[in-house]
Order: sequence, then C-alpha cells, then structure tokens
Amino acid sequence: MMNKNPEIGIKPATIGVTAAAGFLAAGVACGVRYEGRRDLGLLLSEEPGCTAAVVQTTNVLKAAPLPVTKEAVATGNVRAVVVNSGIANAATGRRGLEDAYRMQALAAAELGLEKEEVAVSSTGVMGEHLPMDRIEAGIKEAVASLSESGSGFAEAILTTDTRTKEASARVQVGDKTVTVGGVAKGSGMIHPNMATMLGFITTDAAVEKESLQSTLRRATDRTFNRVTVDGDTSPNDTVLLISNGAAGNTPLTAESPDYPAFEGAVEAVMRQLAKEIARDGEGATKLVEVIVEGAKSEEAAAALAKAVVGSPLFKAAVYGEDANWGRVLNAMGYAGTPFDPEGVELYFGPIKVFANGEPVPHREAEANATLAGDEVQVVARLKEGEASATAWGCDLTYEYVKINGSYRT
Amino acid sequence: MMNKNPEIGIKPATIGVTAAAGFLAAGVACGVRYEGRRDLGLLLSEEPGCTAAVVQTTNVLKAAPLPVTKEAVATGNVRAVVVNSGIANAATGRRGLEDAYRMQALAAAELGLEKEEVAVSSTGVMGEHLPMDRIEAGIKEAVASLSESGSGFAEAILTTDTRTKEASARVQVGDKTVTVGGVAKGSGMIHPNMATMLGFITTDAAVEKESLQSTLRRATDRTFNRVTVDGDTSPNDTVLLISNGAAGNTPLTAESPDYPAFEGAVEAVMRQLAKEIARDGEGATKLVEVIVEGAKSEEAAAALAKAVVGSPLFKAAVYGEDANWGRVLNAMGYAGTPFDPEGVELYFGPIKVFANGEPVPHREAEANATLAGDEVQVVARLKEGEASATAWGCDLTYEYVKINGSYRT
Repeated sequence: MMNKNPEIGIKPATIGVTAAAGFLAAGVACGVRYEGRRDLGLLLSEEPGCTAAVVQTTNVLKAAPLPVTKEAVATGNVRAVVVNSGIANAATGRRGLEDAYRMQALAAAELGLEKEEVAVSSTGVMGEHLPMDRIEAGIKEAVASLSESGSGFAEAILTTDTRTKEASARVQVGDKTVTVGGVAKGSGMIHPNMATMLGFITTDAAVEKESLQSTLRRATDRTFNRVTVDGDTSPNDTVLLISNGAAGNTPLTAESPDYPAFEGAVEAVMRQLAKEIARDGEGATKLVEVIVEGAKSEEAAAALAKAVVGSPLFKAAVYGEDANWGRVLNAMGYAGTPFDPEGVELYFGPIKVFANGEPVPHREAEANATLAGDEVQVVARLKEGEASATAWGCDLTYEYVKINGSYRT
Repeated sequence: MMNKNPEIGIKPATIGVTAAAGFLAAGVACGVRYEGRRDLGLLLSEEPGCTAAVVQTTNVLKAAPLPVTKEAVATGNVRAVVVNSGIANAATGRRGLEDAYRMQALAAAELGLEKEEVAVSSTGVMGEHLPMDRIEAGIKEAVASLSESGSGFAEAILTTDTRTKEASARVQVGDKTVTVGGVAKGSGMIHPNMATMLGFITTDAAVEKESLQSTLRRATDRTFNRVTVDGDTSPNDTVLLISNGAAGNTPLTAESPDYPAFEGAVEAVMRQLAKEIARDGEGATKLVEVIVEGAKSEEAAAALAKAVVGSPLFKAAVYGEDANWGRVLNAMGYAGTPFDPEGVELYFGPIKVFANGEPVPHREAEANATLAGDEVQVVARLKEGEASATAWGCDLTYEYVKINGSYRT
C-alpha cells in the first residue's frame, strides 16, 4: 500500500548510523534510570574535518543539551555524539546545563577531541538530574567498545519505543557512491515542529556546511515534521546530520549537479525513519498515512494532512476500524487552510466515500475493511491546485492512555 | 477547590433555558437515530421583538443549519430555536441545506412565526441525511408540549453527553431583576474556536442587538473557547443568545451603567456551562482547571492554559493521577507564546513543584494526591505581566478511546 523507496537498503549489516564509511558507534548500559538496558550511545566519525547540521525543537522550553549541541555545530566541526536515554535533562536549571557541558567534555577527553567536536543529547523523563558518575563510567565503556555496528547505539537511545529505527540509502555522486545512514527514536511527545525526539543521520559524502544545513531543514520539514503521535512537541527534539567525506567525492554544494540525488537520499532515509516513528507511536497498532493532493501549495497540503493524522477522533476511529470519513473532512476543516469542502474527494484505501459535498454510496463494511491491516491509507483530493503532501501518524489506543497514565512510575 | 460564582442559582426549578421570563421549551422523542430518547428540542420566547446574537464554528466545513441560523439572526428577530440530536446534518450537500431550511419553515408554520424568527441547529453523526418525516412529526409534538420547564430541551440536545448542562444567573438592571439562563451540550469534538457544539442562552433583559453580539463574542472567547476535550473543532458549533425584554428594563446598550453586570451574568452562565462540558468530556473522570497568571496579556495566558488542558500526555497523566509537572511546562512551551521558563512557578493544587528553572523538592505522593478527586487544579505563575486566564478540560481515559472507536456502530 505504501510507496517503498527502491533506493533504501534494508540489509541488516549496512543500515543505520554506521552504514556510511568511517563511522563507528557504541551503546552501553550504565544505569541512568533502569538497570541492564542500554542507555548511553556514542557515535564517532574516524575522519576529522566533518561538517554538521542540526535542527532542534521549536518548544520555548529547551532541554539543557540543546544549546550545547547548537553551539558545537555553529563553532566546531562536530564528528561525535554522546547521548543518553532515561532522563531528558530538561527543566533542570543551571545544574542541568553544567551536566550537559560535562557530558560533552568527558566524551571529548576520552576520544581525544576538542569539546566543540562533540554533540550532546538526552531523552527520557523531565525534571530529574543526570547521575553524572554513571554517565562518566558509561562514556569510558562506550569509547572502549566503539565498532562498525550501529545497533547498540540504536537501542541505547530508545525510551518507550518498542523497536529500533534505522535506515540507509546509497546514491551516485560523480564517480563515487555515497551512503546516507540514520537512526531515530520517537514514541511519545511527538508532533510536527520537530517531530521526533532524536534523529542522527550520517553520510560519507563531503558536503559544504550551508548546503548541509538547508538540506536537513528541508528534509526535516518533509519527513519528521509530517509525523504526529500525540500533538506534544518535546523540549529535546533534535535531528543532527554529520558528513565526513569518507566517500572521497568532490565536496558537494547545493549547486552541484548531483546535489538533488544526495538530497533525495537524505530525505529517503529520514522519511523511512519518520514512518517508523509513526508506526511505533506509543500504544499504536497501525501506521496511518494521509495523502492530500490538489492543494494550492505544499504547505497547505501538509497542514491538511497533519490535521487529519493529528485528530484524536480520527485516530480512535482507526483503532476501532471504523471508516468514519466525517472525522477526516472535519479535521481538514479546522486545519487553518481555506478550501472548498464541496470540491473534496475522499478515499479510504481504494474506496471513494465522499465527493461533490455528499457521501458517496458505498458498503460500510468494505470501507472499514481498509482499516483492518497494520497500514492505513487515506487520500483527500482537492480542486485547489497541483500541490500534494503526505503525513504519517498512528491510531489512538487504550495502550496510549495506559503508557502515559503511568510513564514515570 | 473551584471558585463557585455566588450569583449563579442552582435551583432546579429555575435554571436552564426557561429560567428567564417569557421563554417556553419542549423536548420530544421523534426517532432521528435512536428509538425512545428525546432528540428534538424547541425553544420559544412568548414575547415578540427579540434580539439575538450568534457565534458559530471556525471550521471551514460548516453544517447545513449554520448558514440558515446565521441568516435568520442577521435578517430577522429570532425568537425560536428548533434543534435535533442524532444526526448533525453536516457534509450532506444541497439536500442537507434544503432539509435545514425545511426544519426552519416547519417550525415557523407550526408556531405561526416568520421563518426568519426561527434558528435551526443539529448535532450528531456527520454525512447522514435527516429523516424529515420524523422531524416534521417531532416539531408538531414539540409545539403542542411547550412548557416552562427547560429540562426536556436540555435532554433533547445531548449526544454522547452523560448528563444535561444548565445554568442561570440574576442581576439587577436599574430597578429590574433580569435573568440569564442557558443550556449546552458538549462531549466530543470539543476544542477552542467554538468549543461546545451547542449552547443556547436566553435572557429576559432588553438588550440592543450590537451590544448583545459583542457580549456573546467576548463571553464565548472567555468560556466555551477555553474548553478543550480533544482538540477537534466541530462543523456544528453554535452558541445562540436570545433576549426578549420580558424583564421590562430600559433597553441596555454597551454604554449602560448596568451593562457590566448584565455581561457578567452572561459570562457566569456560560462559564458554568463550559465547565460542565469539560467535566462531561467523552470518557472523562475529572474536571481539569488550569490557571495561568502573570502573563503579558489575557490572550497569552489563555493560549498557555489551553495548551496544557489540550495536551494528551498531561491528560493521560491526570487520569493516572501522576503529578507529571514536566508535561505542564512542556505544553506551555509549545503554546506559541514566548515566555521565560525560568520565571515559571508551577502548582498542583497547593503543592509547589517547579520554580527558578528547577524542580522544587516535594513529596511526589502529596502532589499526586491533588489529582485524586474529580476536580483538578493546576496553576502556573509567570513573571511576564499582570494578565491571567483559566482554561478547562478533562482527563484522557480508556473510555474516550472506546467511545470514539465505536461511536457510529
């Protein structure tokens, strides 16, 4: 049902944050919050002289690691990331900021790097301080266990996620093959305007810094920012993209003939991670894909699609496998984008349910059947223009309520 | 815990839509969707020459009755309302609009009024046509059973609501006592920007039309628009205010010395109805009141308070009786209003949990205990200015998911 992008490699040995040449990673258990689960990840480019780009949350409240990472990307050549799960280091005041700087300094010292070469990230519960002795021990252990496998890192960044999320893509740039790999974590507190809590993307392409930043911004808007689980935008959201040039290509800029191919690879990796985040939303049983076509701009199409995937009423109906198209139309109606409801055609899978301002006669059981699987697709065709956009979400379930009624305890 | 407004009378015999002099109402069962439950309501002012004001949904999709009622309020002297529950007459095309006009005409004919004196309203499922033969029979029965009791009307407008919502207030205007009464229905698809699906407010005060409209607008913004159950704004939302002058006061305008007292009474009635809607949100077990103080404007305070009551993560935590203040702060952070998080003081009931950018040490069990009852109050004090606002919502429960996973079936 979903479009699978053919260029995405799903070979276990090569996906994820170490798929691109020259990247090593580790994930260790240091007991940040729970015993015996990986909760500290480390990522390193063996190549120096990397360029990096970052997109962070729009929340007024920003977790302590965010300014530290922003400063590193702005002033240094970030080539390493240290990240913990379990405690978000958010709403932790001056001590929280000191802890984030200390994580950076500890990782830099162990790796023999400048502080400005290390990005820092945290995810987990808010309002608690990090156990810095355990973090320190974890960093030492992680440095000692760096390898070409990204799977430990992918595990170490999870919170209520039920599975790891990794992807990769390869494209030709001149006479070189470049690889883009990535890892993400999501689950709860997921909403457009920095959707995912954490995403780390790596590439062995050599890319000029400003181009890299604009590519990350654009790809984030089209992928992670098109996902909603629950409308809650977290203070920790960060997507970081590091390029190390290990592929040996002539450095790319936005003007390079092969740049669209590279940008497409970045977007493809991030799109797959975004869909995995939606599919693994807290309590989710179904991935929901909403496609809006015929809008007057991509922004309008995206706003309409995001309103639908974000509607609790629609999400509950999907869970109940009730093809309640009225809720789709209703959510589009409050998206803040003008359109003519009479010009809308609505489809649940292949079943047309609404057109010309009225229900299209159809067998309800047939429409409901389009919701029976674990991937659901709803399409809205407008008569406003030529633009389209896709947004991803999940159903709203008892389990979501259960998880979030007792997350801290 | 909540401030009870002392001027609101809770005497069963006098509250509701017939509390003001000269109003009659009826509620009958005509089988719009279910057998044996009241589903058609009729409201009439015995006094002619009423003035009326209306505020309707901001949803691009507007149910068929909305333009009919808007036109009546604009061109006529609305003194009667006919309303059905069960079917929303939304997304029903040309036939839906014809049905709404026909409901108006049928009620006008039975009551011996001009069509423009009758407002029309519907609530229920979208995308289905009204059974006009039953509506017609119901209107006849309702006209025959008009009385000074508003309780049948209050019942007839309910859908998934679990109880009726009525209120009234009395104030002195010159040497006359004027009464404001009201009824509302809410439950699901409830969100700021016309919060409640339906509210009908009546007063025996004589009030000039433009003043009445601005009073309704302002009171709606401060009451119904401060309620959220699930973030879904319905296409049927309507609040109608009718004044019939039966109190015999010199007609009020916005400049009258007693106007603030009258406006206060309208707002008090609507506030009580708004809180009842929040308390009776689909699946709700708790009324949640969030007060934001020290904001730089009432709009900013309202935006912050509404973001908190609207956060699914916060709502689920309230259900789980987990005083997860991080989710309060986080929701404020994405409200779209700038503020300094370091300047925020957060309280769960009387327990201070956050100040100066850090958690305030407190016993978690004590903070959780503030969530144990059926009314929950959270206060956020900012250091941005002098303005404050209150918003109301409810917890997110398994039952909400259950109701909305199977509403149509």
